Amino acid sequence: MASTVYDVTTFPASVSPQTDIGQVINEIVADIHAQQTGQTTRPGAVVYIPPGHYTLQTTAVIDVGFLTIKGSGHGFLSEAIRDDVDHSAWVETLPGSSHVQIANDGQVGFLVNRAGDPATNGRLNSVVFQDFCLDGVSSSKPYVGANGNGKTGIRFEYDNDAVRVEGMGFVYLEEALTVRNADAYFITNNFIGECGNGVRMIGGSIAGRITNNTIVTPWGGDSVFVENAENCVINGNSLLWGARIQCKNVHRAVVTGNKLVSNFSGMIVHETPCHEHLISGNHFRRIFGDGGPARNDDLYGMVHLDGDDNAVSANLFSFAVDGADIVPSGATPTVVLVKSGARNFLSGNQVAANLAVRHVVDASATDTKVLWSGASGQLEDLSSSTSFVPTP
Amino acid sequence: MASTVYDVTTFPASVSPQTDIGQVINEIVADIHAQQTGQTTRPGAVVYIPPGHYTLQTTAVIDVGFLTIKGSGHGFLSEAIRDDVDHSAWVETLPGSSHVQIANDGQVGFLVNRAGDPATNGRLNSVVFQDFCLDGVSSSKPYVGANGNGKTGIRFEYDNDAVRVEGMGFVYLEEALTVRNADAYFITNNFIGECGNGVRMIGGSIAGRITNNTIVTPWGGDSVFVENAENCVINGNSLLWGARIQCKNVHRAVVTGNKLVSNFSGMIVHETPCHEHLISGNHFRRIFGDGGPARNDDLYGMVHLDGDDNAVSANLFSFAVDGADIVPSGATPTVVLVKSGARNFLSGNQVAANLAVRHVVDASATDTKVLWSGASGQLEDLSSSTSFVPTP
Amino acid sequence: MASTVYDVTTFPASVSPQTDIGQVINEIVADIHAQQTGQTTRPGAVVYIPPGHYTLQTTAVIDVGFLTIKGSGHGFLSEAIRDDVDHSAWVETLPGSSHVQIANDGQVGFLVNRAGDPATNGRLNSVVFQDFCLDGVSSSKPYVGANGNGKTGIRFEYDNDAVRVEGMGFVYLEEALTVRNADAYFITNNFIGECGNGVRMIGGSIAGRITNNTIVTPWGGDSVFVENAENCVINGNSLLWGARIQCKNVHRAVVTGNKLVSNFSGMIVHETPCHEHLISGNHFRRIFGDGGPARNDDLYGMVHLDGDDNAVSANLFSFAVDGADIVPSGATPTVVLVKSGARNFLSGNQVAANLAVRHVVDASATDTKVLWSGASGQLEDLSSSTSFVPTP
Repeated sequence: MASTVYDVTTFPASVSPQTDIGQVINEIVADIHAQQTGQTTRPGAVVYIPPGHYTLQTTAVIDVGFLTIKGSGHGFLSEAIRDDVDHSAWVETLPGSSHVQIANDGQVGFLVNRAGDPATNGRLNSVVFQDFCLDGVSSSKPYVGANGNGKTGIRFEYDNDAVRVEGMGFVYLEEALTVRNADAYFITNNFIGECGNGVRMIGGSIAGRITNNTIVTPWGGDSVFVENAENCVINGNSLLWGARIQCKNVHRAVVTGNKLVSNFSGMIVHETPCHEHLISGNHFRRIFGDGGPARNDDLYGMVHLDGDDNAVSANLFSFAVDGADIVPSGATPTVVLVKSGARNFLSGNQVAANLAVRHVVDASATDTKVLWSGASGQLEDLSSSTSFVPTP
Repeated sequence: MASTVYDVTTFPASVSPQTDIGQVINEIVADIHAQQTGQTTRPGAVVYIPPGHYTLQTTAVIDVGFLTIKGSGHGFLSEAIRDDVDHSAWVETLPGSSHVQIANDGQVGFLVNRAGDPATNGRLNSVVFQDFCLDGVSSSKPYVGANGNGKTGIRFEYDNDAVRVEGMGFVYLEEALTVRNADAYFITNNFIGECGNGVRMIGGSIAGRITNNTIVTPWGGDSVFVENAENCVINGNSLLWGARIQCKNVHRAVVTGNKLVSNFSGMIVHETPCHEHLISGNHFRRIFGDGGPARNDDLYGMVHLDGDDNAVSANLFSFAVDGADIVPSGATPTVVLVKSGARNFLSGNQVAANLAVRHVVDASATDTKVLWSGASGQLEDLSSSTSFVPTP
Repeated sequence: MASTVYDVTTFPASVSPQTDIGQVINEIVADIHAQQTGQTTRPGAVVYIPPGHYTLQTTAVIDVGFLTIKGSGHGFLSEAIRDDVDHSAWVETLPGSSHVQIANDGQVGFLVNRAGDPATNGRLNSVVFQDFCLDGVSSSKPYVGANGNGKTGIRFEYDNDAVRVEGMGFVYLEEALTVRNADAYFITNNFIGECGNGVRMIGGSIAGRITNNTIVTPWGGDSVFVENAENCVINGNSLLWGARIQCKNVHRAVVTGNKLVSNFSGMIVHETPCHEHLISGNHFRRIFGDGGPARNDDLYGMVHLDGDDNAVSANLFSFAVDGADIVPSGATPTVVLVKSGARNFLSGNQVAANLAVRHVVDASATDTKVLWSGASGQLEDLSSSTSFVPTP
């Protein structure tokens, strides 16, 4: 094998990977530093994690570019279901495949970071995580705050380009994946289950895609959080039970073909003004009963828009909550809330509901269009400027 | 290599994998059972199938979780084209890469199943099939019924969670992939060609995705069959020549960004009432000439809806069949048939056709909306309650 | 290991892969020919390229089916950014992972071709490129023409079926990927950056998908070029800075869920009549300032339609160019130009712009529909037959 191919089970580290895979990987990274010493002789490496149970006592710090860390399977098993039932006769009671257990509360499993200034020393390029399981071992809903274990699966701290996170499993983590200052990120085909927060794109990001993932989070955190970003694509994901895409100063996002199911309001949220999002071809399903307290009441909107020229088109909104569970009591739940901003555009959306619901355009919004997106009576227009064409 | 990494060509089995790869894999699974004996010491394994031609005489039975079976290429070659032409001078006449030939009629290649009760003994988690070819060896259209060989590529029988079937090839099988009682399934990037049925999600399933696949089936079976399911996502697939998504008690499915081409009517079919589907951004192409008999006549609908609150929006329907081939003779073909149910919603669909076609709303349907989805004259409303806004 | 598993670093070739990986792969292919000699005994092989820097002096010619060439990471690093700044203190200054540098101007890196006639000798099936980097080493914008290095990453010349190009990196190439006469192609999850042309589907193709790719090209070439094709699916891609999908005699394409950003007009272009495209749920962003000259002026259309029954629905068009930069000076920029053809259908599109823009229907177009796709005043209808329902 080439010297750039490592296996955590055969590398001569100071500890076994079963005892501390983080330390083993740090020693592998040190070996890469020792082997690859010139600006044009640093192709990185691949580190293979065969199926097995591994404990991570020490945070693995990735400070080299072009490193691929790869297992043979995300090995997801539902730890929440396990903990909720008599599992004494279960055949397997742990996640499996290439299964890394983060040992310590408050710990980051994999930290992608290095000393230096990206402007001077360059970014970290093409770091890849594929096909293994990051497990926080124990937690309870909503996996954040008082119940959180403070564990993060992967955190990119240093400016980065062309990262890939693919086919990974994440379970029982307060934060599954956090990426700071990313350019051209690919986050696809992952299974994030029973985590407080799913994917967090923090700092600022330039362009990238969060696609084809299943993300299961309850009420405490976000399925996807993005801030200070342009050109984010969020397509074809299944966001379950507490689906929430939270945007802060995010412009021109594309959100299409997603399945969002939540026990709570706020399934797409503009926390600050966000402009020109395209939210098209998504299925929003609102149910009730699994957990809480809710972060927002039922007037907040299944979709909560704040900004200019956002388009919400060709979606299906399905609302199924008993009247007795609506908060505030007796309120008419809001489907899309246009909180503020100009020229927001709702067109061709279907609304299915078990009780009266409506869109709301707040007083400060201007020139909103609500076109075949609700029947007569399904719009409360508090502005004086909405164009409303009710679904006939 | 770690003890969890197997290669079918090097494992000391009682037979060669060329003779019976099913038996080899069963002996590998037996070895996993022998090696992994505790509830918390069962990480599973990866079984590698290098490129080569292998015969499967014995069904491989997977009764361990976290098993990844992986090849190096789906190796698809069109056996139908081979059989239809003089291939005496073809360089290769079999599929290749990691190529598994199922030997016996009526046989299942890979059966994921185990003794026990999922409620007591837990589900089978994170079983993965990647990047190899499952070949039924010989068959003829439509690959089912009298012409079928009764072979199934992969069948999940036991309750399962987080299965992945990715990058696989399937050819000349009566059923390519059948999954019973699935939760959080990922079926992506596969090539299913010349099979009677493509993907069948039977029993009941909770949430999952069938995405980015090419599925080529003729007139006998279904491209995708789903029953008793919620939260199914069917996105970005190419379903060819006999495209048919058949749904039975399926609610809140998302069907977006697919390319459907068929020689027959019935490209999305609600076999029983199905509610709140979002069918958006798909391209439906109806042609004629390759095979039959058709399961349904041309009044059945390219899309056949039965249920409440389904949305069909922003699709393109393209119909190109000579008048002489329409059944019943002289009939006006149906684009979307709303057979029954309330508040079905058609909005912003383009219809292109070589002859007169129309949508039909049957008498028992109520409160249907047909909005800019056909010109004046392209709707037959047999109910008394449809809102029709013709495309101007 | 099986005899079908090759590693370029361990195969006993006449040169080292660092010196000429093309020659090494050609010798591997010769070995496959020597080992696999019968029509039914040609399963192909997998060729592994471990992380490292490799030079390709000799074009690798793939004339066997079922060959998978696979690395451990696309290893993208932005060479344009490197060349534009002081990179003296960068830690890494080359792309990495499995990094193949094409040595010679005008050269093709990988040529998939063989002697013979596909009709007599069969097609090349299931050739796969995965997870490595093809680097043209040096170039400058727009990477074509006088500034182009004439290098092509991968070229499929011979008729082919079921090709896969996945997870690859391409940088500093005049053409990244060119595929002639393809059937059932899968081009997914690739990062094409700083190339003159991205994906070119030439000759004629039958059905396939270009999905989930990031393609960064400037003003000289195309992000995606397709000719003489049916059933092309272009979904969920990020096409940046000079986004352009160029179609020539392409019918019934599906273009959904894409993010297109360009400094130029012409983001989807029908070069010749193209019929029944579905362009839905895409985000088009027009900016100005990075390079030129533009191939077309601002009257050309962000989307330039020519053909019958094309549907442009549920998209968002965002236009942000200073008036001083509009060409011709003082013109009103065109959003969608319907140059010719019958029954083109615009429905439910949002237009956001910093200055006056409009759709244009040329005189030869007939029966165009422009429905809630622009305000009153945002359509110039030079035909006498357009149905216009302005966004209210």
